[in-house]
Amino acid sequence: MINRGEKILIAVSGGKDSLSLWQILTNLGYEADGMFIDLGIPGFSQESWEKCEKLSRRLSRKLFKTSLEEIFGMNLLDIAKLERRVPCASCGMIKRYIMNNFALKNGYKVIATGHHLDDECSILLGNVLNWQVEYLRRQDPSLKEENGFVRKIKPLVLCSEEEIENYARVMNIDHVGKGCPLSKGATSHFYKSIMNQIEEKMPGTKLRFYKGFLKIKKDTFGDEKPAELKPCIRCGYPTTAEICSFCRLHERIKTKISQQNPEKMEEPLS
Amino acid sequence: MINRGEKILIAVSGGKDSLSLWQILTNLGYEADGMFIDLGIPGFSQESWEKCEKLSRRLSRKLFKTSLEEIFGMNLLDIAKLERRVPCASCGMIKRYIMNNFALKNGYKVIATGHHLDDECSILLGNVLNWQVEYLRRQDPSLKEENGFVRKIKPLVLCSEEEIENYARVMNIDHVGKGCPLSKGATSHFYKSIMNQIEEKMPGTKLRFYKGFLKIKKDTFGDEKPAELKPCIRCGYPTTAEICSFCRLHERIKTKISQQNPEKMEEPLS
Repeated sequence: MINRGEKILIAVSGGKDSLSLWQILTNLGYEADGMFIDLGIPGFSQESWEKCEKLSRRLSRKLFKTSLEEIFGMNLLDIAKLERRVPCASCGMIKRYIMNNFALKNGYKVIATGHHLDDECSILLGNVLNWQVEYLRRQDPSLKEENGFVRKIKPLVLCSEEEIENYARVMNIDHVGKGCPLSKGATSHFYKSIMNQIEEKMPGTKLRFYKGFLKIKKDTFGDEKPAELKPCIRCGYPTTAEICSFCRLHERIKTKISQQNPEKMEEPLS
Repeated sequence: MINRGEKILIAVSGGKDSLSLWQILTNLGYEADGMFIDLGIPGFSQESWEKCEKLSRRLSRKLFKTSLEEIFGMNLLDIAKLERRVPCASCGMIKRYIMNNFALKNGYKVIATGHHLDDECSILLGNVLNWQVEYLRRQDPSLKEENGFVRKIKPLVLCSEEEIENYARVMNIDHVGKGCPLSKGATSHFYKSIMNQIEEKMPGTKLRFYKGFLKIKKDTFGDEKPAELKPCIRCGYPTTAEICSFCRLHERIKTKISQQNPEKMEEPLS
């Protein structure tokens, strides 16, 4: 997944998974720095940031930070209200965009995330129940660099959430204990509880389900169809449309803010 | 699935699914007769047979019967003990064999079973969790006649268990209310309860899961690999081995019985 000497950017959230990943990669001798995106969630984001900072000091590795407030002038909850979608729907796209752009501009060859076996099984179950063949083709522990996307890796996909929890405890990694309060009721949590029931009844199913998938994936679902991507005319980010989702969201937010406070706008909207 | 004029053999168990299927096909004008296999399960098989007989009289259609006792000299529970496997493992193979042989010898072009959406989703979930690609290729509402196998169809695969339950109630079809007592704790029941939880949370999932599978099946999992079948040297049934599973089981049973009661054996075993 990683070649020696490559600088890694870890998407850290303050939770056990991404912080454990940071600790592990650093222990293994990789040059891994952290990037934290402050989503502006009251009673959650500040504490999350502090946990990341703490580990950053302990590992003596750089930690970068940006916030939705700086970028958009509003937090994730406001964005979700504006978009009339669940927060997770916008959050994923926003984080992927910011991470990729930051990595490209700062010489990071690879972005690592803390996804583990339970995350992947939950995603896989959802993809299979809906037979999302294109998503199944793309679900991989390692997405290679292409078309303006930095390489993305998930080194912990064969570790269960429980194993990571234990690792964090043993290694004394201070982290936020609760999950994101905005993701309550998210489908991914439901699929995880389903997979946990199956694992409880038939131990080993998660690993068999996920590893079995990786084994038959290419022969069964075929190669990923290369998306016809071109640079966004606003920001250059790879997109299938003229303007990328991030810029379109940004524009909707600017329009909204200008409607609410016309005098506050610094530049007229086109 | 069925051409007009083809004689259909329905595998009837006395439960709501197979009896409803019999009623439906008869109402639609098909020539469908019933075949009941008495598994010799105390407190279950006799009642099951009576329900089948009752519907047979009501529909004025033939009902055939055979029993494991007649064929093997022991019931399913004894066979399971002998085999040291769960009863379901032997039961499926035995029923398929008997049904196929009976249909072939009696001019039935097609065997119909009462499998419904819940059965198929449960099978599909199990096949997917274990990525049983060969089973996925074979999972189909209609398996064509080939190599000594009669055509097999499952006309009710798009009906939920609940719909069939309601149909049986409205049509006043008397049936055994409880499931097979030997299948308690079977994996299929567990997968059904899992699918029910998902359906409860996300209505429509079962139908989407199963219909989506049928849609992508051929392109994704490819054509069934034709098994290299040859006639069993004992009975002529198609098999990949020299002697088919049914004949091998039969032989083990005969050996067992001859060990227990040597004087009772009519012919010496080879």
